[in-house]
Amino acid sequence: MAPLTRIGLAGLAVMGQNLALNIAEKGFPISVYNRTTSKVDETVARAKQEGDLPLYGFHDPESFVNSIQKPRVIIILVKAGPPVDQTIKTLSVYMEKGDCIIDGGNEWYENTERREKSMADLGLLYLGMGVSGGEEGARHGPSLMPGGSFEAYKYIEDILLKVAAQVPDSGPCVTYIGKGGSGNFVKMVHNGIEYGDMQLIAEAYDVLKSVGKLTNEELRKAFSEWNKGELLSFLIEITADIFGIKDEKGDGYLVDKVLDKTGMKGTGKWTVQQAAELSVAAPTIASSLDGRFLSGLKAERIEAAKVFKSSGVGDILANQAVDKTKLIDDVRQALYASKICSYSQGMNLIRAKSAEQGWDLKLGELARIWKGGCIIRAVFLDRIKKAYDRNPDLANLLVDPEFAKEIIDRQSAWRRVVCLAINSGISTPGMSASLAYFDTYRRERLPANLVQAQRDYFGAHTYERIDVPGSFHTEWFKIAKQSKI
Amino acid sequence: MAPLTRIGLAGLAVMGQNLALNIAEKGFPISVYNRTTSKVDETVARAKQEGDLPLYGFHDPESFVNSIQKPRVIIILVKAGPPVDQTIKTLSVYMEKGDCIIDGGNEWYENTERREKSMADLGLLYLGMGVSGGEEGARHGPSLMPGGSFEAYKYIEDILLKVAAQVPDSGPCVTYIGKGGSGNFVKMVHNGIEYGDMQLIAEAYDVLKSVGKLTNEELRKAFSEWNKGELLSFLIEITADIFGIKDEKGDGYLVDKVLDKTGMKGTGKWTVQQAAELSVAAPTIASSLDGRFLSGLKAERIEAAKVFKSSGVGDILANQAVDKTKLIDDVRQALYASKICSYSQGMNLIRAKSAEQGWDLKLGELARIWKGGCIIRAVFLDRIKKAYDRNPDLANLLVDPEFAKEIIDRQSAWRRVVCLAINSGISTPGMSASLAYFDTYRRERLPANLVQAQRDYFGAHTYERIDVPGSFHTEWFKIAKQSKI
Repeated sequence: MAPLTRIGLAGLAVMGQNLALNIAEKGFPISVYNRTTSKVDETVARAKQEGDLPLYGFHDPESFVNSIQKPRVIIILVKAGPPVDQTIKTLSVYMEKGDCIIDGGNEWYENTERREKSMADLGLLYLGMGVSGGEEGARHGPSLMPGGSFEAYKYIEDILLKVAAQVPDSGPCVTYIGKGGSGNFVKMVHNGIEYGDMQLIAEAYDVLKSVGKLTNEELRKAFSEWNKGELLSFLIEITADIFGIKDEKGDGYLVDKVLDKTGMKGTGKWTVQQAAELSVAAPTIASSLDGRFLSGLKAERIEAAKVFKSSGVGDILANQAVDKTKLIDDVRQALYASKICSYSQGMNLIRAKSAEQGWDLKLGELARIWKGGCIIRAVFLDRIKKAYDRNPDLANLLVDPEFAKEIIDRQSAWRRVVCLAINSGISTPGMSASLAYFDTYRRERLPANLVQAQRDYFGAHTYERIDVPGSFHTEWFKIAKQSKI
Repeated sequence: MAPLTRIGLAGLAVMGQNLALNIAEKGFPISVYNRTTSKVDETVARAKQEGDLPLYGFHDPESFVNSIQKPRVIIILVKAGPPVDQTIKTLSVYMEKGDCIIDGGNEWYENTERREKSMADLGLLYLGMGVSGGEEGARHGPSLMPGGSFEAYKYIEDILLKVAAQVPDSGPCVTYIGKGGSGNFVKMVHNGIEYGDMQLIAEAYDVLKSVGKLTNEELRKAFSEWNKGELLSFLIEITADIFGIKDEKGDGYLVDKVLDKTGMKGTGKWTVQQAAELSVAAPTIASSLDGRFLSGLKAERIEAAKVFKSSGVGDILANQAVDKTKLIDDVRQALYASKICSYSQGMNLIRAKSAEQGWDLKLGELARIWKGGCIIRAVFLDRIKKAYDRNPDLANLLVDPEFAKEIIDRQSAWRRVVCLAINSGISTPGMSASLAYFDTYRRERLPANLVQAQRDYFGAHTYERIDVPGSFHTEWFKIAKQSKI
């Protein structure tokens, strides 16, 4: 009989295969299982090919579970929702008290909490673990966000610390997030932030291409340059790569042949819904979701473009000369300032949820584990970590002295870019929402007094005063009526 | 024994009292009940005082229910959520097969559908009816949005037609909305649109006051003038009123003493969450919700203002001369164009839900019943009705020929106002989100191709092409790596 393995993994789509190979490569013997057994054989073949890694395939759930040393830990990587319940059902019948299941998918946090409870009834432990980094990350070092049973976390901590991405001076990109569904929630917001980053980059591209008339080669150079400074990040890097890739099916560059319709998988939507639920303004992230929705209405947009084309909308600055070098520098600054706003929103959303749920999440530590492995990895995250190190109770990243200074330095360029876009008839919804967020947050007095006066006028909702404490109601209608007589 | 009444109403807060008096005044004898009996006596006293109206008060639920002719119809106006369930429980034990309960509160539509089902088990009918217009509307003619049992609707249609606001050439502001929770859903979106209108008006006020330096008297005049044209509406009218009201507690105008913190009650939040759920972009409405959230962070804003004050942010145009007359005219146009975008979003949200639920809602008819009685009543709604009369399948109000022309005429002013605000360091989140919505919707080609290329790069999510049908995946990373060697 073969020796028992240290851990198991069920669900062998690309992410699952890659994570299993990563674990095996780090020296932890692993059992793997998939309902469609060809995937098992495929993974075993890859393990052999990629260096005779200690990975063992099983075609039935019982022998898979029995091949793992006790207490058993099984990571499942299947589609969120019912497939997770189904997989748990399949495996748990062979598992014993003290064993643990870890869901590595993008699951809704409440589903994880429900499952943690029902697993506890069986004496089993449960973790919901966000895994970011795509296929490459899973294979060579993802960012891991495990939440749920601390006991279960401690048992596999040695594995996670080695499997996660390693960042010099910062350590492995994993930490115990917190209780319940906190790991899933943090991963969800990570994805929302990722949506925001991608939207802002797309807007930068749009301004540079549509207004600045930059070629793909010029775009590639600009993004490559940006990737040497404050914007250094995975997403900027791959964007530069994308601009350099020619179309194998014809002339020109591939990016120009890609249809302008963006897919999505639900975590961005959840982030926006949770922001509303928790009374946290997250307009940059919301703009990225709307951007995806509107991108999907391709047929409607074609029709709308016809309706408005003849009116001259959008050609306002068509013939105006633009200083490309200056524009690239302005757009870089606008992108960076907007990015600060977007991360402020995401971080405040996590904090609001943490307070609601009593999760006691450490925002700086989250920034640290996002520094490597994941899609939003960036040098920028180190600045965020340091901001929370300076002041763990920071109300908003915008008012951290370092970030505040960076914004002040960039605000003129930021305003120029948004207005240039507006006057060119193109939209920068994310950058303009970010700027409005900044200009709203830093204003002592907003016009909300009028809104509250209106609410009291028609709905007797009362109002507070700036000079006297208490709650007041005025018979606005009666007074106005009298004065009209 | 007294003759039986035609209808009953339970829940006698101000809205309930006023709606009961309205019904009685229209000649329908009505029974009223409230758990706190003093409210019953108060309502009876008002009925006597306001013209010996046929209104009868009851202190216990049984005699209240028994006082109504069969099949009995009882409107309940209590706080949404558990109080509605409690009231139904209290009353339904005395009700008989064929009787009907109508919930007139701002209830979540799924709660109505759940109750409709459990009532059906008892042989009772159920309606969820949105009631808009605040206290004044309830008393003198609200806009009514009844959804649920059509049979129940037909039985009280004669009452609703008389009780609702009456608009010349357009009829009573009530119609059978549709099945299930459609009445609540439509009222929810109505409220979301109301949030949007209030936000846009607040921004107009902000630009005119902060940049244009208009006095309250000048603001009152400007809004009064606006209320004679395309913006003619209840909210513009009351805004003009508000600017004219002096502070009774001290010097100056009351609006300047009102604290800039805005309350909310949940329907705006639901609207934004439903928009995300249904993949409908509703950034103007979302900006109004964010505006309320940020208004609530008064203490944080005071601190943030200190951090950024010394940097000169916000004083960019402080000393620039502004032509007030020109600015007023520009802001009017920006407000109107933004309003078109906001209503487009709300209407498309209703249509998306109608398609999902099979409600078969008539958008033009909804615009008609909002023309009077409710908070968003406006001459503008007649234009919306006509747009849907012209084309019931209109994809978006923006592409209706009349609205398209209005936007084209106003777009220069719209862009000027948003850029003026941005360069003055104040924010117009609703107007700029509306403009971005317009500029995104009317663009044939968006930068979403880059986003989809990124998604395929790091997540193998595939992409479509503009020239060949099908789904494609490129090994971006490998190609980029090779070209770098």
